[in-house]
Amino acid sequence: MWSRAAFLALFLLAPAPALADEGMWTFHSPPKKLLKEKYGFDLSDAWLEQVRLASVRFNSGGSGCFVSPNGLAITNHHVGLDSIHKLSTPEHDYVRDGFYARTQAEELKCQDLELNVLVAVTDVSERVKGAVEKDATPEEAVKQRRAAIGTIEKEAFDASGLRSDVVTLYRGGEYWLYQYRQYKDVRLVFAPEGQIGFFGGDPDNFTYPRFNLDFSVFRVYEDDKPAATPHYLHFSPGGVAEGDLLFVSGNPGSTNRLQTFTQIEYLRDKTRPRALATIAHLGAALREYAARGAEEERQSKDLLFSLENSRKAYAGELKGLLDEGLMLRKAEEEAALRDEVVQRPELAAEIGGAWDEIAEAQALIAEQDDRYYYARMRSDLAGKALTIVRYVAEVEKPNGERLPEFRDSNLDNLKFSLFSEAPIYLGLDETMLRSGLELAAQNLPADDPFLTLALGEKEPAALARALVSGTELEKVETRKQLVEGGGAAVAASQDPLIVLARTIDPLLREMQERAEELGFRITQAQEKIARARFAVYGNSVYPDATFTLRLAFGVAKGYEEGTTLVPWKTNFYGLYGRCRAFDNKAPFDLPPRYLEREARIDLSTPIDFVSTCDITGGNSGSPTINRKGELVGLIFDGNIQGLPNAFVFADQADRAISVHVAGILEALVKVYDAGPLAAELLGGM
Amino acid sequence: MWSRAAFLALFLLAPAPALADEGMWTFHSPPKKLLKEKYGFDLSDAWLEQVRLASVRFNSGGSGCFVSPNGLAITNHHVGLDSIHKLSTPEHDYVRDGFYARTQAEELKCQDLELNVLVAVTDVSERVKGAVEKDATPEEAVKQRRAAIGTIEKEAFDASGLRSDVVTLYRGGEYWLYQYRQYKDVRLVFAPEGQIGFFGGDPDNFTYPRFNLDFSVFRVYEDDKPAATPHYLHFSPGGVAEGDLLFVSGNPGSTNRLQTFTQIEYLRDKTRPRALATIAHLGAALREYAARGAEEERQSKDLLFSLENSRKAYAGELKGLLDEGLMLRKAEEEAALRDEVVQRPELAAEIGGAWDEIAEAQALIAEQDDRYYYARMRSDLAGKALTIVRYVAEVEKPNGERLPEFRDSNLDNLKFSLFSEAPIYLGLDETMLRSGLELAAQNLPADDPFLTLALGEKEPAALARALVSGTELEKVETRKQLVEGGGAAVAASQDPLIVLARTIDPLLREMQERAEELGFRITQAQEKIARARFAVYGNSVYPDATFTLRLAFGVAKGYEEGTTLVPWKTNFYGLYGRCRAFDNKAPFDLPPRYLEREARIDLSTPIDFVSTCDITGGNSGSPTINRKGELVGLIFDGNIQGLPNAFVFADQADRAISVHVAGILEALVKVYDAGPLAAELLGGM
Repeated sequence: MWSRAAFLALFLLAPAPALADEGMWTFHSPPKKLLKEKYGFDLSDAWLEQVRLASVRFNSGGSGCFVSPNGLAITNHHVGLDSIHKLSTPEHDYVRDGFYARTQAEELKCQDLELNVLVAVTDVSERVKGAVEKDATPEEAVKQRRAAIGTIEKEAFDASGLRSDVVTLYRGGEYWLYQYRQYKDVRLVFAPEGQIGFFGGDPDNFTYPRFNLDFSVFRVYEDDKPAATPHYLHFSPGGVAEGDLLFVSGNPGSTNRLQTFTQIEYLRDKTRPRALATIAHLGAALREYAARGAEEERQSKDLLFSLENSRKAYAGELKGLLDEGLMLRKAEEEAALRDEVVQRPELAAEIGGAWDEIAEAQALIAEQDDRYYYARMRSDLAGKALTIVRYVAEVEKPNGERLPEFRDSNLDNLKFSLFSEAPIYLGLDETMLRSGLELAAQNLPADDPFLTLALGEKEPAALARALVSGTELEKVETRKQLVEGGGAAVAASQDPLIVLARTIDPLLREMQERAEELGFRITQAQEKIARARFAVYGNSVYPDATFTLRLAFGVAKGYEEGTTLVPWKTNFYGLYGRCRAFDNKAPFDLPPRYLEREARIDLSTPIDFVSTCDITGGNSGSPTINRKGELVGLIFDGNIQGLPNAFVFADQADRAISVHVAGILEALVKVYDAGPLAAELLGGM
Repeated sequence: MWSRAAFLALFLLAPAPALADEGMWTFHSPPKKLLKEKYGFDLSDAWLEQVRLASVRFNSGGSGCFVSPNGLAITNHHVGLDSIHKLSTPEHDYVRDGFYARTQAEELKCQDLELNVLVAVTDVSERVKGAVEKDATPEEAVKQRRAAIGTIEKEAFDASGLRSDVVTLYRGGEYWLYQYRQYKDVRLVFAPEGQIGFFGGDPDNFTYPRFNLDFSVFRVYEDDKPAATPHYLHFSPGGVAEGDLLFVSGNPGSTNRLQTFTQIEYLRDKTRPRALATIAHLGAALREYAARGAEEERQSKDLLFSLENSRKAYAGELKGLLDEGLMLRKAEEEAALRDEVVQRPELAAEIGGAWDEIAEAQALIAEQDDRYYYARMRSDLAGKALTIVRYVAEVEKPNGERLPEFRDSNLDNLKFSLFSEAPIYLGLDETMLRSGLELAAQNLPADDPFLTLALGEKEPAALARALVSGTELEKVETRKQLVEGGGAAVAASQDPLIVLARTIDPLLREMQERAEELGFRITQAQEKIARARFAVYGNSVYPDATFTLRLAFGVAKGYEEGTTLVPWKTNFYGLYGRCRAFDNKAPFDLPPRYLEREARIDLSTPIDFVSTCDITGGNSGSPTINRKGELVGLIFDGNIQGLPNAFVFADQADRAISVHVAGILEALVKVYDAGPLAAELLGGM
């Protein structure tokens, strides 16, 4: 058919590395030349430093930025949601009703939210790579590299007191020491009602046009006082116009653009379908739990949302991967690079086998993959039990030989999370545990060693009930006593979850080591491919995302969809229009305040807008910034057309969706009477 | 891939004739049983008669209904557009600015608009079929049938004075005499600005959600006084709710649901691609013409719109046909029916060969198809020339032997159109003529007889220029003189378009006869297939659309699209939201009145809504009616998902789009100060 043929022709004509508004660039290798050529913009070091120091990573899994010199930080509502949820009680449902601290005294301290600011980066590639001895086996190389990384991180932490992480870029092509200022006293200042943060609910997720005020405001404290944050972004008074050059500074979580065709095939045929089956099973179990009562519904709401979010994301991604066009493009790109390599004999000798090495390792991974997947139990309590069992063993080892999360530089964060006062809901946890065990029983062969160890002759439901009713790990005190009691206390514990963790830990470690070894083989081969890309295409490539700070760029721009045009921005008319078109029924209902105060609102005020910036999960809450370095919006989603962009920056219609700062201000002033907060955001406090 | 497999499974499970809200039913075989079973609704004869007599066919190509006892008729703006355009002048652009006659004296008489009301139907199948002698060849059968139809129509017209058409249903399965009351004095009462009638322009055409006030109001006169129209539809005071049972009474133009797989393949591979190529060529020529100046732009605007409309419709249809799923469904349906026929030996003997007969005739049609297509010149003047040349020849023949459009019963209408005072734009007509000749020269072999006769050694552009500059047919007087002068005057005429028409008429007639003969062979075979469908499926089938009055039914209902939900209705919030999202830029700009008077409007008032009613082109302007027989809306479009429905009533998301009566009233009162018109519509004049 002509459509297929035309599509093919397009691919064959396209240059291998596309140079659209593509790339999640590091701040230490920014696309200065590209921006100068394409947009006439001089990306200065001063601009970069100011934006980097104003950018904030929310370790709950998102991004944000400072918006006042007094520690005020803004992010998405759905990034803040975990904290807002933990601060809520059956009496005060801040998720449903929103929250506003009219004075600093009213600001609510989050239980386990940590914010990071990237203050220093150092290239440590030589040192990490140099630590591997010349004749090291891959297994030895892993250990030597891990030891070197452990040492670098510990030295850096000891010298500076800063969180110090060695980050692997280009799948092992480069290693960088990233150092962060950490903020652990973070307080909730403002949250709108969940219903306006997530207006349109699941149906509108990954959809555009969109009408969400997906923002929340926090403040970082030091010594019980608002922290001084001299680097912050000003709310733009001028707004945005279509065609404006924009930047996104945030922490994209993970992309697989350097993965080979074989790897993506595995994802398409195994990993994603399995994840979707898991989500379906767990979702059904959680909905059953939520149906028991209002409190159960409240407890499971977030999880159900994030599950539905993942379902849509994976399904969209899988749809992209099942599209022959996209896979063809990937295959073409790979063939083009391999052709270039073949034409360079030296490169070919060094690198040519990399693709086959990955295919072989991939086949070996497949052998234990299901067991490794199903043995990781998705229960908060079971996870804490395993952490405790490992903690007491790992801290006895030299720093460089420990599992990464138990290295000295990470121990503080680990304890922060392990000893969090945030409530654990036993019924919810039992549901998670049961679902995981049922899935394992359904999907692993009957004689699988994990099943034998964990389940034995028991039924999953009965075991989950016994584990959760018998444990005391939901108490922070119990967890502290076990950790402080060390190996002896843990060995003596009769807590059923600790017993289970002790039983399966050896098997889990064995699988983890095997997975790491095979992962490292793949990393080595990918490092070769990354080198080949550098050699062939120069600095027109950027590393895959690693939940570290990146800069994307693009323009505010609408697009064509189906038969029509989609505007680059939406407004309050559209919000009320969609609400009324659905007769104010959930999930298109508006919070009461919005219905009462409609007349005050200038309905033409923009709410959300789209740009061509290259983003992915983890970018949620990222500041969208104009040329002047002013804040014009907050990234909160991508449209469905953008979902396959974990693998290929794909489409004419791939768009990043931001909340517009004008919409935030309009709501704060007109709907919430939050003038003082608006004034602080506008710099007039 | 799973998607394909799942799709296939669905088809194999589906019963052959789908029984969704499907069908464009005649008023003489309405789906009473279906409505009773599915919706508990008693479709009474009184209800049917009232709706039929209130329904109006606009012979410019649309539908409508009476809405007051004093001759007031409502339809779409785009159905009235041809008349509004013809009433406009460079000084008074009613298309751009709208029109409102505050008194009856100000109502503007349309130049050539005719409205028809279906007042009587009679089954004449026996008489038409009986007129064919037992041993007649197909060619003889065509003539005998044509003669019988001519006689029936003439007798009926002479006896009643009513327009009398014999309508072929079920591709020849049935013949019915349809008699219409004709209204030829039709006056424009109200038209909104074209921009609100067609808000969103080409991009939003075939799109939903939609925000168009696509209506215009006319009044029929008799003896220079408003005609009495006791059968009319009341504007519903209660509006519509999601899930309401609705009816559409109108004149769907043409569907091909009884066509065989072979025929649809031909459409997919030949007819539609050729039409799209023609549209592209003519569209380019017209845009060039429109670029010459404001007046040229005004002249060609309508044509360009209707061209773009056809392009989108054909492209959407072609997309449907290129979808393997749809063709597979068609193939499955056909195979199921053929299976049923095979299992009934008597039926098989009579009917079994029908599909092969169609395939053979189709192959013969293909032999002359391109010549026949390109020889029909799409120019108003060339068309009038051919009509004149044929007129003087045909009226000399006995009524029954004439070409259908020259039968006595049709002569009045023919003259009404041929002698219309509506302006003919020479530059525009030359552009059309040139484009048609260029396409013929490009697509027919060099020695094609049409090219030899029409073009000879000349270039298309030069010939078109010579024809249009040399003709005087743009004058009504010239056309009248030729017709009145009869054969002698036409034979003596040196008008270059008359000369051309005389030259090519024999070839055109030859091709027309051949096409009719082959068409009749196909009709005969289709009649067999229609009989087979009756025999197998009973009265669960309805005839293909023939631009005669039909009743469709369905419910007001939203749908899923892509990742999200589409609401069943839209409102003024959405209109202003879309306008502002595009910064009031064309084609999303609002007429000044809407910007000035926004504050008066209740923005939650519905504008448009969708229902599952089965419609197609020609239904534009059809009343959408509730159970009580009240008017709740006017059909004005289908969404893009509905485009393949000429062949298969397709999709979960196939929707008919109506203007909501509440939106019409809100605009009349709040925007246009047209309170008296609103009062007449509400019955309070």
